[in-house]
Amino acid sequence: MMTPENRNRAVVLASGGLDSAVTAALAKTEGWALYLLTISYGQRHGIEIDRARRLAKWLGAVEHRVHELDLRMFGGSALTDNLDVPRDRSQKERTHGIPVTYVPARNTIFLGLALAYAEVVQATRIYFGANVVDYSGYPDCRPEFIQAFAEVARLGTKMGVEGRPVDICAPLLFKTKAEIIRLGLALGVPFHLTHSCYDPDENGNPCGRCDSCRIRQEGFRAVGIPDPVPAHQTDVESSVRNSP
Amino acid sequence: MMTPENRNRAVVLASGGLDSAVTAALAKTEGWALYLLTISYGQRHGIEIDRARRLAKWLGAVEHRVHELDLRMFGGSALTDNLDVPRDRSQKERTHGIPVTYVPARNTIFLGLALAYAEVVQATRIYFGANVVDYSGYPDCRPEFIQAFAEVARLGTKMGVEGRPVDICAPLLFKTKAEIIRLGLALGVPFHLTHSCYDPDENGNPCGRCDSCRIRQEGFRAVGIPDPVPAHQTDVESSVRNSP
Repeated sequence: MMTPENRNRAVVLASGGLDSAVTAALAKTEGWALYLLTISYGQRHGIEIDRARRLAKWLGAVEHRVHELDLRMFGGSALTDNLDVPRDRSQKERTHGIPVTYVPARNTIFLGLALAYAEVVQATRIYFGANVVDYSGYPDCRPEFIQAFAEVARLGTKMGVEGRPVDICAPLLFKTKAEIIRLGLALGVPFHLTHSCYDPDENGNPCGRCDSCRIRQEGFRAVGIPDPVPAHQTDVESSVRNSP
Repeated sequence: MMTPENRNRAVVLASGGLDSAVTAALAKTEGWALYLLTISYGQRHGIEIDRARRLAKWLGAVEHRVHELDLRMFGGSALTDNLDVPRDRSQKERTHGIPVTYVPARNTIFLGLALAYAEVVQATRIYFGANVVDYSGYPDCRPEFIQAFAEVARLGTKMGVEGRPVDICAPLLFKTKAEIIRLGLALGVPFHLTHSCYDPDENGNPCGRCDSCRIRQEGFRAVGIPDPVPAHQTDVESSVRNSP
């Protein structure tokens, strides 16, 4: 029988969002013993952390760590400061330039923490739900960035020197949101536990209008099924009509 | 007149140790406006942080941030766990393999945090006191690691995409400890504010016997001047004779 003791170990960066849930489910299907890492960096949506905990249970993760990271390091982003999160942007508007929701060096730090965790538990892989199709404006979601980080992981660790480098696996990198949702459906991912909003209300309900909500809505619409998180089903067209 | 406003900005990773003090002094001499970053990761020697603060004042740093990092991410090192720090090792013993004082992925995380800080304050350089001569066993002090991280900085940030990448400068990389001390003397570095011990006593006095203390002692001896931190002057030979 496969037990956590004799399976290969993988660290999964689990944000509580849809992409990282599908990534983790894929890692599970591939037979890895899962070590989930959620970074809480004082982002507005603390609800994501609760969802990540529930997801970890569903996945049968060996361990789930929540690492608190000081917000102050990340001034200058709409996700960490009191800047307005853009709403009701079209696909074209969303992919023009670097979004104000870019958080300086975030994925470098997240992958660095995942790398430390991987060495501590001797995991040989980090799963990372980055995506370059819907999030083309983020420099630290691009394949060339991930490849560069893999070199850092190989050269800057004891495991790398010993010939067992930690590899960085981003299985959703080139998938559309619809493809990611279809993959998640096939894997039985509990989408109702996932959360994809940059700017939820005080009860944790998604706004339905930020880039992340809109990409999710468009994805479920393309697949042709309703989003199991009701508030994510906001009708985009009507919210556009009603926006000031 | 040069003011912080019209000088180029650099982030300096300042541990409170001798190498980072010389690195910061060099950056100052080169005309950079200094943004010092000290990472407090629950290491035993909290005294280093106090020294880094005093050094920041001496340097006239524009800002000095102390970033707390959760210790738990770093299990598995003599610097973070209750493992014994090796003592009284010869130069040959010290450079054989990866020391137990290696902290998993530490410099990747430290440089990642420095990179975020650099983007927030729009600094175009990170100064980093890594050294490959005396610390050849640490994978994340090697030039190939630093080069790989520079690629991450170029590819994974907004500044990199905009053609103003943050470069990583490790000016002490190939210097011996004696050369570093001579450089520090020329720059007027207040060595009495620096601290180089892995395992100080409860009053913050260096042990005089760990690898870091021994490298420092050998450096001052090679230069032919006394170490201004009296406890660092422990006679290595007598402590070897007296060791159990």
